Amino acid sequence: MKPSIPKGTRDFLPSEVRRREYIFETIRRAFRVYGYQPIETPVMEELATLTGKYGDEGDQLLFKVLNNGDYLAKADPEALAARDSAALTASISKRGLRYDLTVPFARYVVMHQNELSFPFKRYAIMPVWRADRPQRGRYQEFYQCDADVVGSDALVYEAELIQLFDRVFAELGIRSVIHLNNRKVLAGLAELAGQEAQLTELTVAIDKLDKIGPDGVRRELAGRGFPDAAIEATLSALQIEEIDQLKELLADSEIGLRGVAELETVFELLDTSQLTNRVRFDASLARGLNYYTGSILEVKVDTAAHPGVKMGSIGGGGRYADLTSVFGLTNMPGVGISFGAERIYDVLEELNAFPEDADSELQVLLIAFDEPTHRYAFDLLTRLRRADIPADLYPEPAKLKKQMKYANQRGVPYTLLIGSEEMKSGKMQLKNMRSGEQSARTPEELVAYFTNG
Amino acid sequence: MKPSIPKGTRDFLPSEVRRREYIFETIRRAFRVYGYQPIETPVMEELATLTGKYGDEGDQLLFKVLNNGDYLAKADPEALAARDSAALTASISKRGLRYDLTVPFARYVVMHQNELSFPFKRYAIMPVWRADRPQRGRYQEFYQCDADVVGSDALVYEAELIQLFDRVFAELGIRSVIHLNNRKVLAGLAELAGQEAQLTELTVAIDKLDKIGPDGVRRELAGRGFPDAAIEATLSALQIEEIDQLKELLADSEIGLRGVAELETVFELLDTSQLTNRVRFDASLARGLNYYTGSILEVKVDTAAHPGVKMGSIGGGGRYADLTSVFGLTNMPGVGISFGAERIYDVLEELNAFPEDADSELQVLLIAFDEPTHRYAFDLLTRLRRADIPADLYPEPAKLKKQMKYANQRGVPYTLLIGSEEMKSGKMQLKNMRSGEQSARTPEELVAYFTNG
Repeated sequence: MKPSIPKGTRDFLPSEVRRREYIFETIRRAFRVYGYQPIETPVMEELATLTGKYGDEGDQLLFKVLNNGDYLAKADPEALAARDSAALTASISKRGLRYDLTVPFARYVVMHQNELSFPFKRYAIMPVWRADRPQRGRYQEFYQCDADVVGSDALVYEAELIQLFDRVFAELGIRSVIHLNNRKVLAGLAELAGQEAQLTELTVAIDKLDKIGPDGVRRELAGRGFPDAAIEATLSALQIEEIDQLKELLADSEIGLRGVAELETVFELLDTSQLTNRVRFDASLARGLNYYTGSILEVKVDTAAHPGVKMGSIGGGGRYADLTSVFGLTNMPGVGISFGAERIYDVLEELNAFPEDADSELQVLLIAFDEPTHRYAFDLLTRLRRADIPADLYPEPAKLKKQMKYANQRGVPYTLLIGSEEMKSGKMQLKNMRSGEQSARTPEELVAYFTNG
Repeated sequence: MKPSIPKGTRDFLPSEVRRREYIFETIRRAFRVYGYQPIETPVMEELATLTGKYGDEGDQLLFKVLNNGDYLAKADPEALAARDSAALTASISKRGLRYDLTVPFARYVVMHQNELSFPFKRYAIMPVWRADRPQRGRYQEFYQCDADVVGSDALVYEAELIQLFDRVFAELGIRSVIHLNNRKVLAGLAELAGQEAQLTELTVAIDKLDKIGPDGVRRELAGRGFPDAAIEATLSALQIEEIDQLKELLADSEIGLRGVAELETVFELLDTSQLTNRVRFDASLARGLNYYTGSILEVKVDTAAHPGVKMGSIGGGGRYADLTSVFGLTNMPGVGISFGAERIYDVLEELNAFPEDADSELQVLLIAFDEPTHRYAFDLLTRLRRADIPADLYPEPAKLKKQMKYANQRGVPYTLLIGSEEMKSGKMQLKNMRSGEQSARTPEELVAYFTNG
């Protein structure tokens, strides 16, 4: 048989794993420094936990795991007789693969509420699964990187999460713009337009502004019954860049002013933070997800610094009033962010900004020419490795050409040539594979050389 | 609804994740220093890749993923009519969760053979899934930690993998005994007993020696038609501790002598390695897996050093002649090892040998008493974090008692008290939460204190 892997999934070569790990590790280190703690949840969740949390479309994109054993014995006979796949599923599948990290997190907080201390700050960097139609840049198995703090509505958390975004993108070398808005401001605009009841529809329409343009938003809002004057007032409000101006506009909206005050607090906290990237108030930022109730965040590549990089959001997040009531625990507000790791990978690739040593961890390949030098090389190899130097030895004393070819394929920066002369003198030939330079080194010198970089 | 997770799966609290990560990271660092490279494969594989690789029992323990959409449209009508679950599965499920890391690795080597350089050394630390009946210490979702080198039959790899075992267990503080044998020696014993054709049966019986004792093995071999004299000769050969003695016994078996020679080479290579743990020739080591053809390895806790620790194998491995021919690529011999990470966790727990700081990564929690000091604390927090010091701040100026309770729950080793006096003087009260000692420190001193450990 000719093997293959499921569509929408990927194998990763060592160099790809290292590059991905470089991104994850940069994010992970930041999460930890900011006091977020790692949790892990199973890949499989009860379908009862997942179903109904992502809308009808989401339910259809869940991967469902067939019950083991004689699953047809308990299959719904009517659904079977009617050949009704959708109706049958619940009786032959009780588990599914997680669709995101948020719902499992909510379940986790409820199940472990007595073991956690609140505010509880957690992070998770784990894969999720969605049966989306695979296409360029969209996979059925992909990683999410989330940090959330629940059990507090303090705005210091918004400020620190913005600092965290800033740190990670600064470290990765991606100049970015962090867009900040507040759902309460959007609620104020809805109030102003006399459409309080249609806040969700307004949010959904504004969220598409980038994609469908102002005329598209006009059409969508008109279709929802918004009066023309209200539409124009709203669209012009979305252009506002100064918070003070917004404050005037929303002077009569209590919720709007609360949103403005929250924005001001967050900006005030960041005043002294010496950020590398720009944080921008963006009245037109809406975020698709329904459950946000306060601050909303989105990070985009700064196209002024990186002209030509076409990429949507590379991070986002927001504040929610209620994470867990669907699982029976009320009063659990929080705020969270998410890094778009797969997109960040593509941006770093495009910018050629991965560190050079992501290609190979191996520092040196030992090359010996006959049995006695090979045996000597094995002991030297052992010594280097004991000093924590990633080193390897070609497994037998093959021809130099063959061994050098292997060294090149492994992408190793140095080779160490060990002939009988070298063995006798105790000085090995260290060759820099990039420059071609050679120098003679004793074992002690080699350890020192590689240990001190 | 009261949420739950599937039986046999686990949530991990932050302290558990850190402890697990401590084990994985120790193993991962060793893999890297020894020149093994990380690869990743999807959690979901084609069922065609997995089925038939683990025996009938294994096939039944595979988790199968239901096809998306109207899966009944393509369901096998006869199997449906007969309510035959086993026959139906192939038509409604084409993907499954990986059952181990070896089969996906074999598939990977075949699919990527032109992108890899051989000998190819890979490691993987990833979860696998088995629908085994859950019980204490046995889970349906658990991690495997494997390193393999394929494309070479050089015995230096056996020697380095034993060094690698030694390093990891030395670093973890688990004294262990590394048992070494060779399948060719067992083939020689089968030959000696006149039972060459029944090598597998012999291996399976010997593998149970620990569990069923010599009498059990006697009964099993007698049942397989082994003559009494052959059984007794074999059982007494299993007691041999000196390789030289074995060599005499196997003097007339070509394959047996090849096994002995391989053992001698491996021990010779290790002669100069200064190992921490004992490597022991063990003629009675058989290993269950059928596909081993040369060296076989098993690591057990050294009960002399750790009396009372009852634990089976905490690591194992062996050499195989053929990894990939089932996927159409012949001549791909290799050798690999596997760490029993879940069991290692239990041993470390029992020995109380996890590092103390696994409980919390957070170094210091800032505590402020009113709005101005809280704002000041936020800037100090930012400064500590910029210096890569894991630090946190209670989100609002609550009562001291409440904040200290939170500090204790977070398991943080230091708190930093910031009142208006401290803010004025620029000297904060650093409190060691274990000893209770306090000292006044400036921001500069704090950074230096936590940076230099």
